[in-house]
Amino acid sequence: MSIEGAAGTGAIRRLRLGMVGGGQGAFIGAVHRLSARMDDRYTLVAGALSATPERARASGLELGLAEDRIYSDFGKMASAEAGREDGIEAVAIVTPNHLHFPVAKAFLEAGIDVICDKPMTRTVEEAEALVDIVSRSERVFCLTHNYTGYPLVRHGRELIRAGTLGAIRVVQVEYAQDWLSTPLETSGHKQAGWRTDPAQTGAGGCIGDIGTHAYNLARFVTGLAVEEVSAELTTFVAGRRVDDDVQVLMRLAGGARGMLWASQVAAGNENSLKLRIYGERAGLEWAQEEPNRLLLTPLGEPPQVITRGGPGVSEVAGRVTRVPAGHPEGYLEAFANLYSDAAELITARRAGRAPDAAATLVPTVEDGADGMRFIDAAVASNAAGGGWTRLRT
Amino acid sequence: MSIEGAAGTGAIRRLRLGMVGGGQGAFIGAVHRLSARMDDRYTLVAGALSATPERARASGLELGLAEDRIYSDFGKMASAEAGREDGIEAVAIVTPNHLHFPVAKAFLEAGIDVICDKPMTRTVEEAEALVDIVSRSERVFCLTHNYTGYPLVRHGRELIRAGTLGAIRVVQVEYAQDWLSTPLETSGHKQAGWRTDPAQTGAGGCIGDIGTHAYNLARFVTGLAVEEVSAELTTFVAGRRVDDDVQVLMRLAGGARGMLWASQVAAGNENSLKLRIYGERAGLEWAQEEPNRLLLTPLGEPPQVITRGGPGVSEVAGRVTRVPAGHPEGYLEAFANLYSDAAELITARRAGRAPDAAATLVPTVEDGADGMRFIDAAVASNAAGGGWTRLRT
Amino acid sequence: MSIEGAAGTGAIRRLRLGMVGGGQGAFIGAVHRLSARMDDRYTLVAGALSATPERARASGLELGLAEDRIYSDFGKMASAEAGREDGIEAVAIVTPNHLHFPVAKAFLEAGIDVICDKPMTRTVEEAEALVDIVSRSERVFCLTHNYTGYPLVRHGRELIRAGTLGAIRVVQVEYAQDWLSTPLETSGHKQAGWRTDPAQTGAGGCIGDIGTHAYNLARFVTGLAVEEVSAELTTFVAGRRVDDDVQVLMRLAGGARGMLWASQVAAGNENSLKLRIYGERAGLEWAQEEPNRLLLTPLGEPPQVITRGGPGVSEVAGRVTRVPAGHPEGYLEAFANLYSDAAELITARRAGRAPDAAATLVPTVEDGADGMRFIDAAVASNAAGGGWTRLRT
Amino acid sequence: MSIEGAAGTGAIRRLRLGMVGGGQGAFIGAVHRLSARMDDRYTLVAGALSATPERARASGLELGLAEDRIYSDFGKMASAEAGREDGIEAVAIVTPNHLHFPVAKAFLEAGIDVICDKPMTRTVEEAEALVDIVSRSERVFCLTHNYTGYPLVRHGRELIRAGTLGAIRVVQVEYAQDWLSTPLETSGHKQAGWRTDPAQTGAGGCIGDIGTHAYNLARFVTGLAVEEVSAELTTFVAGRRVDDDVQVLMRLAGGARGMLWASQVAAGNENSLKLRIYGERAGLEWAQEEPNRLLLTPLGEPPQVITRGGPGVSEVAGRVTRVPAGHPEGYLEAFANLYSDAAELITARRAGRAPDAAATLVPTVEDGADGMRFIDAAVASNAAGGGWTRLRT
Repeated sequence: MSIEGAAGTGAIRRLRLGMVGGGQGAFIGAVHRLSARMDDRYTLVAGALSATPERARASGLELGLAEDRIYSDFGKMASAEAGREDGIEAVAIVTPNHLHFPVAKAFLEAGIDVICDKPMTRTVEEAEALVDIVSRSERVFCLTHNYTGYPLVRHGRELIRAGTLGAIRVVQVEYAQDWLSTPLETSGHKQAGWRTDPAQTGAGGCIGDIGTHAYNLARFVTGLAVEEVSAELTTFVAGRRVDDDVQVLMRLAGGARGMLWASQVAAGNENSLKLRIYGERAGLEWAQEEPNRLLLTPLGEPPQVITRGGPGVSEVAGRVTRVPAGHPEGYLEAFANLYSDAAELITARRAGRAPDAAATLVPTVEDGADGMRFIDAAVASNAAGGGWTRLRT
Repeated sequence: MSIEGAAGTGAIRRLRLGMVGGGQGAFIGAVHRLSARMDDRYTLVAGALSATPERARASGLELGLAEDRIYSDFGKMASAEAGREDGIEAVAIVTPNHLHFPVAKAFLEAGIDVICDKPMTRTVEEAEALVDIVSRSERVFCLTHNYTGYPLVRHGRELIRAGTLGAIRVVQVEYAQDWLSTPLETSGHKQAGWRTDPAQTGAGGCIGDIGTHAYNLARFVTGLAVEEVSAELTTFVAGRRVDDDVQVLMRLAGGARGMLWASQVAAGNENSLKLRIYGERAGLEWAQEEPNRLLLTPLGEPPQVITRGGPGVSEVAGRVTRVPAGHPEGYLEAFANLYSDAAELITARRAGRAPDAAATLVPTVEDGADGMRFIDAAVASNAAGGGWTRLRT
Repeated sequence: MSIEGAAGTGAIRRLRLGMVGGGQGAFIGAVHRLSARMDDRYTLVAGALSATPERARASGLELGLAEDRIYSDFGKMASAEAGREDGIEAVAIVTPNHLHFPVAKAFLEAGIDVICDKPMTRTVEEAEALVDIVSRSERVFCLTHNYTGYPLVRHGRELIRAGTLGAIRVVQVEYAQDWLSTPLETSGHKQAGWRTDPAQTGAGGCIGDIGTHAYNLARFVTGLAVEEVSAELTTFVAGRRVDDDVQVLMRLAGGARGMLWASQVAAGNENSLKLRIYGERAGLEWAQEEPNRLLLTPLGEPPQVITRGGPGVSEVAGRVTRVPAGHPEGYLEAFANLYSDAAELITARRAGRAPDAAATLVPTVEDGADGMRFIDAAVASNAAGGGWTRLRT
Repeated sequence: MSIEGAAGTGAIRRLRLGMVGGGQGAFIGAVHRLSARMDDRYTLVAGALSATPERARASGLELGLAEDRIYSDFGKMASAEAGREDGIEAVAIVTPNHLHFPVAKAFLEAGIDVICDKPMTRTVEEAEALVDIVSRSERVFCLTHNYTGYPLVRHGRELIRAGTLGAIRVVQVEYAQDWLSTPLETSGHKQAGWRTDPAQTGAGGCIGDIGTHAYNLARFVTGLAVEEVSAELTTFVAGRRVDDDVQVLMRLAGGARGMLWASQVAAGNENSLKLRIYGERAGLEWAQEEPNRLLLTPLGEPPQVITRGGPGVSEVAGRVTRVPAGHPEGYLEAFANLYSDAAELITARRAGRAPDAAATLVPTVEDGADGMRFIDAAVASNAAGGGWTRLRT
């Protein structure tokens, strides 16, 4: 990926982007906008940034939107934009979880490609319905499991596909934070509020908010399905209505075994997503907080430190690398990689051509449904007092 | 602990030590001997280093033992030494697991204090019998769960006792190796051979060999009982007769939740024992391969790097520190700390006085029995197809 | 700094930006463009991206520039843009070093604010002339010593200003790379070519290319002037026309002593810029390749791990932080911080108001001249066979 | 090296060892004794542990020495022990620096092999005289530059000898501590007292105490002579009579260039000795505080993490390794390696046979003289106001 979206390939072609959610005070909306801007492949031209008209308007003006393209009703936005000559070509959905489904449905049915935050829906049923809608709409649907955008995550996936690790035996994945160690949601904290409200977040708390990221990352890199889980979901903070710590054993396809830990009450952990995979011939280790290095450990040989942009990195990782080795890239660059991949998918669809194969690594509606099945099975296992529970198929 | 056992306290008083097991070609016997020697509190004077007379003799001569104190029958050694004026005051048991019980029994009943390698016995029944024998014998019994000898492990325990972490919520412990990634036991490798032979090692393979170390470490530092486990034991290497990977969920006293992973097939892991504990107010992290630092993470404050011998370390850790901060200590020093603690317990018992309280941190026969109950419950959970299983009490 | 330039403060006001240099095949030009784009404070509207007309045109079209604002002569660009109603408000200079001075002069004299890459000029004389030109022009001049844009670098500076370290004693700064370990310039490598050509790069090779970054970083964080240097400049690669390794002793104001090492032949170093500062009361350590953590070491207390966005970080660092702790930011974000600071300086100048004080941390023409005096003194010391040499004042 | 000195080679043969210095309250004496004990190759049987008779006696009794072999006069000890049938075979000298020369002379002339702490003498003249005395005496003289005893330090040396790095270009060595950041010597601190007293420590303070360790380490691993130095010695703590920070540029044989920093006022550094060496084809990095890993960085390939006992380690390192990879060894083990090497040299000399070649890696009287020449040249360069100064030859 070039720093400029189209560098070397002719004049820039920026997609017209709309956004639902992400008004003043939101966090992830601004991340999506910056990600869209990074490689200059999008221009934000419309938004229903809030359901409250005044807030939607203030937020839209601040971002330089034209007054007639500021909405507070996502349904009206979908139809209005679909009817314009210069209407949006894609929409980014950055609302709380419970709105992902209806918003995605509205825009897909209006013929507009969708980029949606995770977890995809509140329930497996919604997820399966969305799979159908996407299929019928023949539109692009990208899910921002953003950690798959890191170059070395993609390199790790490539190592496994190439057989460098041999058959996978053990998967260790974890995602630890500490920001919910206290009952933050009782003090008016907006992010904590909706994330701990079952009506907005779905059946899982920590498991949906970050457990699905960990799950998706392990699935993405190994390429293996998770068949059964045995889960313990705990709420440590008194009065909290959702789980804040998740411990899961996993049985993966082909006999691999895994452990997944997600916690929002682990003091001293900021955003500690770590993945370790061990195969017959080698292992690999990667940590999101130091994303520019991956440890490759061939059995019987010295471990190798693979750096983003450094010696031995695969083409698939190089493609999403902007600056040379030793110039650290981070969270926003990885997030932007999904946006630029999505731009390629959308542009290709509109042009009626096949997209660059590497761009198809962006998580799909199927990945989103798989994540919902994981939450569902883990919640079921926990509710049953533990024990192995198969993921629905 | 001074570098010399009795420095500053009067003339050195070295205990007469015997050893069972540990002949030529063994690993852990030499570690025990070096540990006994490090602080100059023991003199090795007798041994049944092998059950094969020739090998016992060659091994004994090499170590400078007198011919009449080289045995090949541990029972004869126990009675002969018990009958000598200058007989051994303590015996170190470094045989394969299945002999721990009979050897310990013989020496305890002969009135000789025992230092025994882990896991303590093959079964819970043997373990409980040994608890009784120790109790009746009124002799010292120390179990070399050597990782409890690290100064910063003891400091971590002290932090928790002092309430620095608040109520414990989450325990993450793991012990990963890779040396059994291939069927090493089929090629005549002595260590691999007995460790994968159920007759010598007991019901568990990896779980007994290193899983118990991880379990014991978590118990030692948290001070919390493990009440229930849900376990998945796997054998990845074809033809192997014991588990080589262990994944366990744990419910601890007081509501804490834990995960334990032990593996001998995790490529790139040499001896990676790691412990992380998170409480209401702070967390701590420690890794055996970098044992001279402990990370203390108070909630809402910058993490602190506590170093062995450095600022803020508790007295209990300082006592087992030989050289100043920045001069790394390691595995052998930690192992030797148990030997020197044992010397204090034995010397105090013989003198009819109370031992230095800090020396009582050495793992006991009760800790050994607890470890056997953990193996037993994990094996049972796994055999039952997973699900929560209570430890026997 | 918000992710959007003007978030929370009213509608976005994007500055019209031009660029000189940075056509197809260049590296740093694309970095400048992405940095300008990141916080949405600039729109690129004009450029003399190459002195070769065809290349300038192709590069400009690719970036979406209007045909009439694509130039190949920077002088013509300066006058044409100065004469337009919608002319550029700022120009980014990203040419090889020898063109920095004439280009900056042309635009400043045309009344256009300048953002210029480093090292500022080829000689001290040019640097001093530029100081005068900037002064007379009353225009903003920002020098992209981009490493000063890292939040924790600014936090380190703040710690020293606040007296946390006490009087500074020792400064250790280094910048090691390995990409010029072989005679890359002889194989047509564009970057290596001009950087090792004295006509384009100036008197110093490695010292100008990366040594000045290290020097500037140490000066920025300590706030101390370097008074004398004793330098050894070496060319290890046969046939190379400039130094590729630089070792310097430094005497700083107030009695502090320092060492600076810059190398482009240190195998295994990608972009290893590290700064360590020790004062009477504490020390600090920071490394560019892991920029989201800073180690603060108060004397007699455990070292503290300060994280970007984490506990204890100063306001000045928080201002240039886009995403929460644990979500790594990197090189591009730090570079973009200078651009957004520059946008504030330029916007404030045009509005006739004082800028946000924090934005004045951007390196100035005086910092650039100071860097040139460092190169000059180091080259002189080396030429004289070593020994202390005072920096010109 | 086996854990037992003679394992596998026949019965243990322990050398009779005496010690001068190292009475109660000393630090390094206890380290020497533990090192002698670790591999069971020595028995301490005599000592002049203090020049004060009462203290000598108390210290000797505490260590279990026979009353008639406790001395307070090292000259009397040398002649008395030389005259005994069971007299000592080797003496360890652990006094303050100014006594190294006379004590070594006395024992060597009495025909007794010597193990001596560093720096070897107070002056170059003494050092050269000692070279002569050793040569005439035909006795073994080992200097405990203990950091050369680390397995991975020896592996690093072997890598360079084998040509893995190619011609050496740059050497970066540093040894930073912080324990003298305050005027500790004014508060009765014994270690600080003599180390900052020119009469006992010699011309250099920090440079002699730890600078020589850094220098020796760089020389040992590279195998290159240092030809010239340019040095800045500073005393930061008011009232201190010796340097407490040392910054040196070095020109090495063959054109390599180096920097050496030693400091005892660098807040947050405990015992941070680090060595980095860069050659035409690869680099290596090693840090004493994490001595069980060495980073090998072949140009154009991923860096490799070499672990003590792990894959790819040379025979010469394996020989001084006691426990498997992942079981950390530290300072005491490295120190003991010198003792066990010395035991081999002494035993071989007495047996009239050639020693194991690997044992000859122990630093010699020539290495000690070289270290004194380094101090001498650095002090001279500093006294002359900086500039290159050749080491005497």
